[in-house]
Amino acid sequence: MAVRTLVLGMDGYIGWGLAMHLAKRGHEVSGIDNFSRRANVESVGSQSAIPLLDMEDRVRAFTSMHGEELSFFEGDLLDYDFLADVIKQTRPDSIVHLAEQPSAPFSMIDRSHAIYSQHNNVEGTLNVLYAMKDIVPECHLVKLGTMGEYGTPNVDIPEGFFEVEYRGRKDILPFPRQPHSMYHLSKVHDTANTMFACRVWKLCSTDIMQGVVYGTRTHEMTDGSLTTRFDFDGSFGTVINRYCAEAVIGLPLTPYGQGKQKRGFIDLVDSIQCLTIAIENPAARGEYRVFNQLDEVYSIGELAEIVVTVAKKLGIEAEIKNVENPRTEKAEHYYKVDNENLKKLGFKPTRKIQETVELMLKDLSKHKDRILEKREAILPKTKWYDDRTKQVAEPLSPVTNYTKGSGL
Amino acid sequence: MAVRTLVLGMDGYIGWGLAMHLAKRGHEVSGIDNFSRRANVESVGSQSAIPLLDMEDRVRAFTSMHGEELSFFEGDLLDYDFLADVIKQTRPDSIVHLAEQPSAPFSMIDRSHAIYSQHNNVEGTLNVLYAMKDIVPECHLVKLGTMGEYGTPNVDIPEGFFEVEYRGRKDILPFPRQPHSMYHLSKVHDTANTMFACRVWKLCSTDIMQGVVYGTRTHEMTDGSLTTRFDFDGSFGTVINRYCAEAVIGLPLTPYGQGKQKRGFIDLVDSIQCLTIAIENPAARGEYRVFNQLDEVYSIGELAEIVVTVAKKLGIEAEIKNVENPRTEKAEHYYKVDNENLKKLGFKPTRKIQETVELMLKDLSKHKDRILEKREAILPKTKWYDDRTKQVAEPLSPVTNYTKGSGL
Repeated sequence: MAVRTLVLGMDGYIGWGLAMHLAKRGHEVSGIDNFSRRANVESVGSQSAIPLLDMEDRVRAFTSMHGEELSFFEGDLLDYDFLADVIKQTRPDSIVHLAEQPSAPFSMIDRSHAIYSQHNNVEGTLNVLYAMKDIVPECHLVKLGTMGEYGTPNVDIPEGFFEVEYRGRKDILPFPRQPHSMYHLSKVHDTANTMFACRVWKLCSTDIMQGVVYGTRTHEMTDGSLTTRFDFDGSFGTVINRYCAEAVIGLPLTPYGQGKQKRGFIDLVDSIQCLTIAIENPAARGEYRVFNQLDEVYSIGELAEIVVTVAKKLGIEAEIKNVENPRTEKAEHYYKVDNENLKKLGFKPTRKIQETVELMLKDLSKHKDRILEKREAILPKTKWYDDRTKQVAEPLSPVTNYTKGSGL
Repeated sequence: MAVRTLVLGMDGYIGWGLAMHLAKRGHEVSGIDNFSRRANVESVGSQSAIPLLDMEDRVRAFTSMHGEELSFFEGDLLDYDFLADVIKQTRPDSIVHLAEQPSAPFSMIDRSHAIYSQHNNVEGTLNVLYAMKDIVPECHLVKLGTMGEYGTPNVDIPEGFFEVEYRGRKDILPFPRQPHSMYHLSKVHDTANTMFACRVWKLCSTDIMQGVVYGTRTHEMTDGSLTTRFDFDGSFGTVINRYCAEAVIGLPLTPYGQGKQKRGFIDLVDSIQCLTIAIENPAARGEYRVFNQLDEVYSIGELAEIVVTVAKKLGIEAEIKNVENPRTEKAEHYYKVDNENLKKLGFKPTRKIQETVELMLKDLSKHKDRILEKREAILPKTKWYDDRTKQVAEPLSPVTNYTKGSGL
């Protein structure tokens, strides 16, 4: 019997590639989307660099080119009746939850964007958990979280839990989360709600703490009609993707601040590989497990150097121009992350970052005009802090030792 | 100049007593409430054991008896424009945030009660944080959390943060939260959002992790027209209050499960003393600090014994009859909690629990009829788990070692 997999957020950057990949592997794939990502990117004055078909057309193109079917349901996770109906119809073995507002800067624009981000993400996930409890309690939830939930502590980052010795006693506790934005907070809330649902209702979940994803394509994107979206704006464009877009239109690459902030990164192809591993090796009933899903750690300054070097090879002269950091984050910090759980299940990175950046620059060069058209959207417009905040003396509480802005 | 204090949730169990107490101490007190507590208690088939005036009448009675004024604004924190208007009018030095849905069982009734609890609490608090940032960034937020945010770890519970040594490196990190219900989760989300607002926007907050509160009265409740509400139902009645109500109407006291679960407790008078200390010793700009607000730790079985003993002294024969635990929580566990921060600022418990229980039994005896009328609401109706959940083998993940039900 084929595995039935329901992809929430099938129209998204990862969701679309994942749906095709799973269908090719023989899963019965269904998907849900409300197309909010398209609308939200438009609302910040941008668009996908790579043009996209409508869902109906991309599903049709996939089936005609690859043979497999994809079922799609348009709707919103906040509409419980809709969600419950889809789950009753599709009876998934696994639900992959990618249907969240994923942008930190978007969540920090103002109060209404913060409320929207937490409302959409937290209540959407609550609906998924209740639907699972009530309809498919043995279904495995593969939920996309983010490495940003952990923040940048001065100790190693384990996979979700750590053994603590405190005042002579021991326990295994959830690793403390120190999220960076209203969006990251929403993911931490989801994590707490999901952990609770597994503990109390005996649902099962693999909670993915994913690094920053980059890349333009996966193996199944064999034709322009099958490509996934690619965002490069200051809200939805993540750092490597944004650098590549800047490079192809001749703008300087713009690390925020001094560029010494370190993060974990993973190629889009490998993100999909990892999600597939999680889906095909489900957690046991009642189990809540965490996978740190990243390949390598870089500083955002190092990444800019990598993109410059690869661009040069392709005859693109790119320069680097650091800009004031709009975020409140540590300018320099320790960063060491465990990622053994996926490796134990067979994860092997498939491409070097230089190879992927080369592919990206080539792919994006074909769509220069679409990036140029929206180039005003690239530089960050949303600041975490304001001028009044900057005048306040350094904070007093233990976890507030964050550096404001870049000091450039 | 008088201190201006805005009490969110002024119609509540603590809010009403606190507002009067602060006014007597010379604060300029304003309050907000949407009366949702009255409606929610009614929705579970209960009422306050002690009858309550309408807000207009209780404010008038207070002023006529004590001389001080209280300003009141009826409205909802989810209505940002309303909240912002009140803050602009009152320009508070401190905001005390007691305006949340406070019942764990209520939040566990079903999906819609869970969503309501998280929506109301998390988005209400986000609105408070944004209103502070935009209108009164130097205002001190005294936010009511709960000891239940920490759960029952196998190590001491510090006040919010702890120093960790992990794999040879050190950091001071937020103490991990392991909340027990959809309500407790909402409080954990609030904590994370508030910590972030202090770090990034340099707001200041004292986050109160409060134990379970008990008692019928405070010093300012010099007349029946000034009493605060008293809930005894299975959702809103906390354990000591519920035992006392059971005793006065001749029902057995009903600890959940074996009764070995330990919690921290605090007298209503002392809760108000502590909140007053926090308000009058504000956190510094940019500071986020945590006070564990409790006096003593008891098991819920020990508390039943205390109530039986005190009742006997008053000629009330009470017996104890454990009932199946409707909650998913550890049946037995380590529990040791720091509470030095408030003591350093002068907190001294003012009454022994036996004295308060005696007062409670006397006060409640006058309102036997109101408790009898709603006695069907006392026993728990909401279970954390269902029969299917019970059949699942013991969970596998590190933090899921919770005991289901009582095993009675």
